[in-house]
Amino acid sequence: MDKINIGLIGLGTIGAGVVKIFQKNQALFKERLGVDLCLKRIVDIDLERKRDLDLSNINLSDDISEILNDEEINIIIELIGGYELARTYVLTALRKGKHVVTANKALLSKHWDEIIETAKESNVGVYFEASVCGGIPLILSITKGLSGNQILSINGILNGTCNYILSKMSSEKRKFKKVLIDAQKKGYAEADPSLDINGKDSAHKLAIISSLSFGQNISVEEIYVEGITEITLEDCMYAQEEFGCTIKLLAIGRIVDNKIDLRVHPTLIPKKHLLSKVEGAYNAVYVRGDNVGDLLFYGMGAGELPTASAVISDVAAIASKIKDSNTNFRSFLGQREKKKELLPTDELELKYYIRFSTVDHPGVLAKIAGILGDNNISIASVVQKEPLEENVAFVVMLTHKALEKNIRKALVEINKLKIIKAKSVLIRVEEME
Amino acid sequence: MDKINIGLIGLGTIGAGVVKIFQKNQALFKERLGVDLCLKRIVDIDLERKRDLDLSNINLSDDISEILNDEEINIIIELIGGYELARTYVLTALRKGKHVVTANKALLSKHWDEIIETAKESNVGVYFEASVCGGIPLILSITKGLSGNQILSINGILNGTCNYILSKMSSEKRKFKKVLIDAQKKGYAEADPSLDINGKDSAHKLAIISSLSFGQNISVEEIYVEGITEITLEDCMYAQEEFGCTIKLLAIGRIVDNKIDLRVHPTLIPKKHLLSKVEGAYNAVYVRGDNVGDLLFYGMGAGELPTASAVISDVAAIASKIKDSNTNFRSFLGQREKKKELLPTDELELKYYIRFSTVDHPGVLAKIAGILGDNNISIASVVQKEPLEENVAFVVMLTHKALEKNIRKALVEINKLKIIKAKSVLIRVEEME
Repeated sequence: MDKINIGLIGLGTIGAGVVKIFQKNQALFKERLGVDLCLKRIVDIDLERKRDLDLSNINLSDDISEILNDEEINIIIELIGGYELARTYVLTALRKGKHVVTANKALLSKHWDEIIETAKESNVGVYFEASVCGGIPLILSITKGLSGNQILSINGILNGTCNYILSKMSSEKRKFKKVLIDAQKKGYAEADPSLDINGKDSAHKLAIISSLSFGQNISVEEIYVEGITEITLEDCMYAQEEFGCTIKLLAIGRIVDNKIDLRVHPTLIPKKHLLSKVEGAYNAVYVRGDNVGDLLFYGMGAGELPTASAVISDVAAIASKIKDSNTNFRSFLGQREKKKELLPTDELELKYYIRFSTVDHPGVLAKIAGILGDNNISIASVVQKEPLEENVAFVVMLTHKALEKNIRKALVEINKLKIIKAKSVLIRVEEME
Repeated sequence: MDKINIGLIGLGTIGAGVVKIFQKNQALFKERLGVDLCLKRIVDIDLERKRDLDLSNINLSDDISEILNDEEINIIIELIGGYELARTYVLTALRKGKHVVTANKALLSKHWDEIIETAKESNVGVYFEASVCGGIPLILSITKGLSGNQILSINGILNGTCNYILSKMSSEKRKFKKVLIDAQKKGYAEADPSLDINGKDSAHKLAIISSLSFGQNISVEEIYVEGITEITLEDCMYAQEEFGCTIKLLAIGRIVDNKIDLRVHPTLIPKKHLLSKVEGAYNAVYVRGDNVGDLLFYGMGAGELPTASAVISDVAAIASKIKDSNTNFRSFLGQREKKKELLPTDELELKYYIRFSTVDHPGVLAKIAGILGDNNISIASVVQKEPLEENVAFVVMLTHKALEKNIRKALVEINKLKIIKAKSVLIRVEEME
């Protein structure tokens, strides 16, 4: 075999990146792999759109059957996103003995078992490096590079849009909504940014890397999720100035007492930690293995060429196997380790940042501290900030380690007090030790 | 095949780590790989040493032939280091059809072609993730994860000893020699630290990752090397306080105008860059690909378990292939891209930090600046520091971009001046843009 034929479904941003890389680095791939990678067919529903691409040697069509029925095509790249159509195309391709490369994290986290099983039955590979953290070779590193380790924890900045917004709020002292509009103008946030800013996108990615790290199928519904929509400029500033921390949207997967702790939420991280230095639209993942210790992987988690770079690395991996007549693909995907329970968030034991909106008169702190004390929560540090609005003051504190169920119970009690003017703000702290 | 037998040559620090991981994570490997990894034999010259290891199920011997002639052994791990003995054992093992995992960067950078060719002829694999940056899956990431990219540059902190020393000099304002003694006491530097601090260790590692990144065999002799022995506390302080930079020993591989620029030397890096935040004995590598953009890989580059973690990941990769009856190994190692010339250091165009030791009287700066100007070097920033010793002052400057051959010529002229009291100190600056 001296040529491997590829079909691409979906010619959007990432698809265009894939076309560009195939064209730019074609000679390099031949040198590296000893085989030609030929992008033979592209299917997209929109044939009219002007694209800044040379498609002269590629068969472009809006008929999906042309790709799925082309027996010369060895590898299908699925980049249409979404659930049902993508599922149908991917399963059909796999059943026809074609390998599949996809960036579709939603599809994978919903139909993981079905897709993996179908690939196994057809003895083909399904590859998805591009589904998590764009160009960072994270899935490869976790599944292959760290195979000698029990992964103990993952702490990831997995969504570039959220990180861009939180970075700008902190560095430019601007409010959430203004930065979001700015991010949309610059292309760092979508017109409808909800999947990013509500934390769901991070949860999808966490489901995939946790499934691989902990050797069991983790569904996105099992993950506790909070987004960044309620993070205020004040909280960013107090975190920095009073407690030496930066607020990041963190996706967390940890083994705690042989249970799996899975969460996505805004988190205070000490400024001296590398993760707190990750600015703008970059992604970064801090991984702890029982032998390797701490590792950081950092890079662009989205964008045309970085994401296409991950797609191409998957294509090259498959092509190399086809060329070598290897017939076993992705055996690690079948791995099932001894199943662990999930840790309920009630059982978390963390430090917490809490901001109370109170009336501005004496005795307020005593009342709050009393309820916290009754619930076994001790205060590590507290400041009262100047009232921002008439008759309201902020009491901002960091607790010592406390049980989350106690924190929640205390906050319910405190929020009922007459001295409390708005729902108290709770943000978890990760000391990253 | 339900069992894969492994032989270990060399039971030092890393070897002990390998034994510990095999024992601790044995059940996990079985779950992941579907096959038992059995450490069957160990050979070491010292059978008397007390080791804190359970070796009851392992055949320990000082006779190398017991491993090399054991036909049941599929994979040999070579951890004795050095050149000739290791070369003999590795080549013999490969010729006998055994796969080899090694952490021996010196061996690889000296006998690369012979080892790769022998492995190919015997159709077995030679794996060496542990030879560069210990537990960081860097070789895997470069060769597989970034296969869709032309690597444009690598900027790496590849030696933990040097980074520990430079970090401590900066953060604790202590002199090189004192920190080195401290590092030796704490086990971060060897009794004979010369291979680390003279930059050779970094050069060996750079030779390996450059060979893989740029698709041609790069020998360690082709790399320009400066160590850190001449870095003074004053230079660390001035770099920080006057120019907002940190000094790191950087291993650099770059494509410049289709030539390859290869260097290891102390380097000023802007404090805002992530590489400047890498403290202590950690390693970090900043990689730029033409599509993926910038990536950072960070982790422990040495130590018993981190390095053994990399060894085990290689063993697992081979075991997985054996189990799947794959018969092609490491085809990328044969890759040869269109050969590029090396860039002579004379042709470098960088910014430079220069410290002149001068007499402390008027007219000195004019004289120095005159010679620099005559050599087409313009000054970006200059400060005169208080004399530290009688009759000596430091003139410390940062240049704009200049040709290195001009800088060298100017320094020769300046060093001959009567007003100059000691050889001028030159440190290159990388802006990391």
